[in-house]
Amino acid sequence: MKQKFEITILGSSSALPTSRRNTTAQVLNHAERFFLIDCGEGAQIQMRRFKLKMQRIDRIFISHLHGDHIFGLPGIINTFNLLGRYKELHIYAPKQLEDFLNAINTYIFTRLNYSITFHYLKPEGKDLIYENKLLKIFSFPVSHRIETWGFSFEEKQQPRKLIKEVIEELSVPIPCRIKLKNGEDYVDENGNVFLNEDLTTPPPKPRKYVFVTDTEYLPEIKNHFDGVIDLLYHEATFLEREIERAAETKHSTAQQAAQIATLLNAKKLLLGHFSTRYKDITPFMEEAKQAFNGEIELVEDGKTYSIV
Amino acid sequence: MKQKFEITILGSSSALPTSRRNTTAQVLNHAERFFLIDCGEGAQIQMRRFKLKMQRIDRIFISHLHGDHIFGLPGIINTFNLLGRYKELHIYAPKQLEDFLNAINTYIFTRLNYSITFHYLKPEGKDLIYENKLLKIFSFPVSHRIETWGFSFEEKQQPRKLIKEVIEELSVPIPCRIKLKNGEDYVDENGNVFLNEDLTTPPPKPRKYVFVTDTEYLPEIKNHFDGVIDLLYHEATFLEREIERAAETKHSTAQQAAQIATLLNAKKLLLGHFSTRYKDITPFMEEAKQAFNGEIELVEDGKTYSIV
Repeated sequence: MKQKFEITILGSSSALPTSRRNTTAQVLNHAERFFLIDCGEGAQIQMRRFKLKMQRIDRIFISHLHGDHIFGLPGIINTFNLLGRYKELHIYAPKQLEDFLNAINTYIFTRLNYSITFHYLKPEGKDLIYENKLLKIFSFPVSHRIETWGFSFEEKQQPRKLIKEVIEELSVPIPCRIKLKNGEDYVDENGNVFLNEDLTTPPPKPRKYVFVTDTEYLPEIKNHFDGVIDLLYHEATFLEREIERAAETKHSTAQQAAQIATLLNAKKLLLGHFSTRYKDITPFMEEAKQAFNGEIELVEDGKTYSIV
Repeated sequence: MKQKFEITILGSSSALPTSRRNTTAQVLNHAERFFLIDCGEGAQIQMRRFKLKMQRIDRIFISHLHGDHIFGLPGIINTFNLLGRYKELHIYAPKQLEDFLNAINTYIFTRLNYSITFHYLKPEGKDLIYENKLLKIFSFPVSHRIETWGFSFEEKQQPRKLIKEVIEELSVPIPCRIKLKNGEDYVDENGNVFLNEDLTTPPPKPRKYVFVTDTEYLPEIKNHFDGVIDLLYHEATFLEREIERAAETKHSTAQQAAQIATLLNAKKLLLGHFSTRYKDITPFMEEAKQAFNGEIELVEDGKTYSIV
């Protein structure tokens, strides 16, 4: 059975919240490990509304220092403390975020009972910023009015799976089981060769979620990826008719987001970060379909999108 | 007809938001002038949900610098800017709030297109902090773990109202009309005396709203008030069975809040700022009724309470 790999949208409006959309924040659940990506105002409130396990978040990823991506941080840091947190919290963010939080700390926080470790994002290249047994997380720069990063959540290639009954029948010794998992055949003490594919099944294909927000059209992102991206979230602040405004503010249109999805071999595209100027967002879908053949969804706050 | 005098609750939870209650914030509408009282995280989002006129807020009153009363400020200040605000914003708050916002400004805000004027609350006595034609607003210190203030919104005594038809029939000259409004009788050029009560009607009785949050039981508040308080909002973080916890954290119980309401001659009491430890808050009502005979409501986010 595959591990859970899903994101829940806490906010999908750009700059200003609306009555239906908060500003940017998402929770990624990978194999019951929870990661917070950006933290717009009200992220903690959305987590309560959508019954997400806030206290299980140990790592927060911040794309850039615009208010609509970070103004939920002071509240969540405060709330963790009030809930009796003692576990370290890791924040992956532009360096100035530490100064920002220190400044707030000076005036507001009563001493935290847990520590926060900051990991500064590197300005160039695709950078491995976190790794566990199952997952690697990378940052990569995008192009906005201030320094901004995208994040890629990439499953590791897992070992092949032993077929339990056969392994036990043959009494395969432990060291040989490890070799089997790594793809080697099994040779017993009498020299009999058992083919790997008869004793193991292939592991699930590694999956990949890529998060790109607040960037102008940036085909260079392609340099960081090969193969397939299972799920791509890409900002789509504007429609093509506002392409000049998009260029000025360094944002993308729905069509540009779709072009990036095509370029990155994405299977599915999530669009969000819609400008509040659009009362009806259905044209985002129509526009994106022109440039991308895969599945597309216009995200909604509270909805969960799974990679199966 | 009386002017509108009503408050809408944006948040009524203490310290932590829940799925149904945000942290403290209220909007006061007095005669279509809008005042924001405290600004917990998500206040701007609640204003959108409850269709309040955010852009008409020119004055914000902050009781104290705990996160659950101010973490909505950066977002609202940012949003005002994005909405093209040019009007000055006045903030009445403890002095350190300016440092807090300056610190955020250093790292986050791109220059604001409007100015913010800070008015520091005075540590002692009842202090007139704002006045317009209809209303006076006062601050007064309460007693919490850090410096904290309550606010009182008091209508001014208005002049008597002229009975139009009679005034016109008698062709009362303008200067005499002003005297009539102030309660004098009218003497015409032939020396005929017309009694004030025949030419005017009394003005509506001035009304008063008092906001008290985050304080231990503080009967000394009484020194600042005489007469009747139409509506009192008083924090009730705990029930009597947690009275020790209330004392430690310098909060009030429902019973203590009700005692203050009795002491202040309040007509109606609003209770809020409930600790999230209570899943069922109906005992707050039962407890408060023991100590206060007037009307009591346990406030809810999104509900409006009017003084008629």
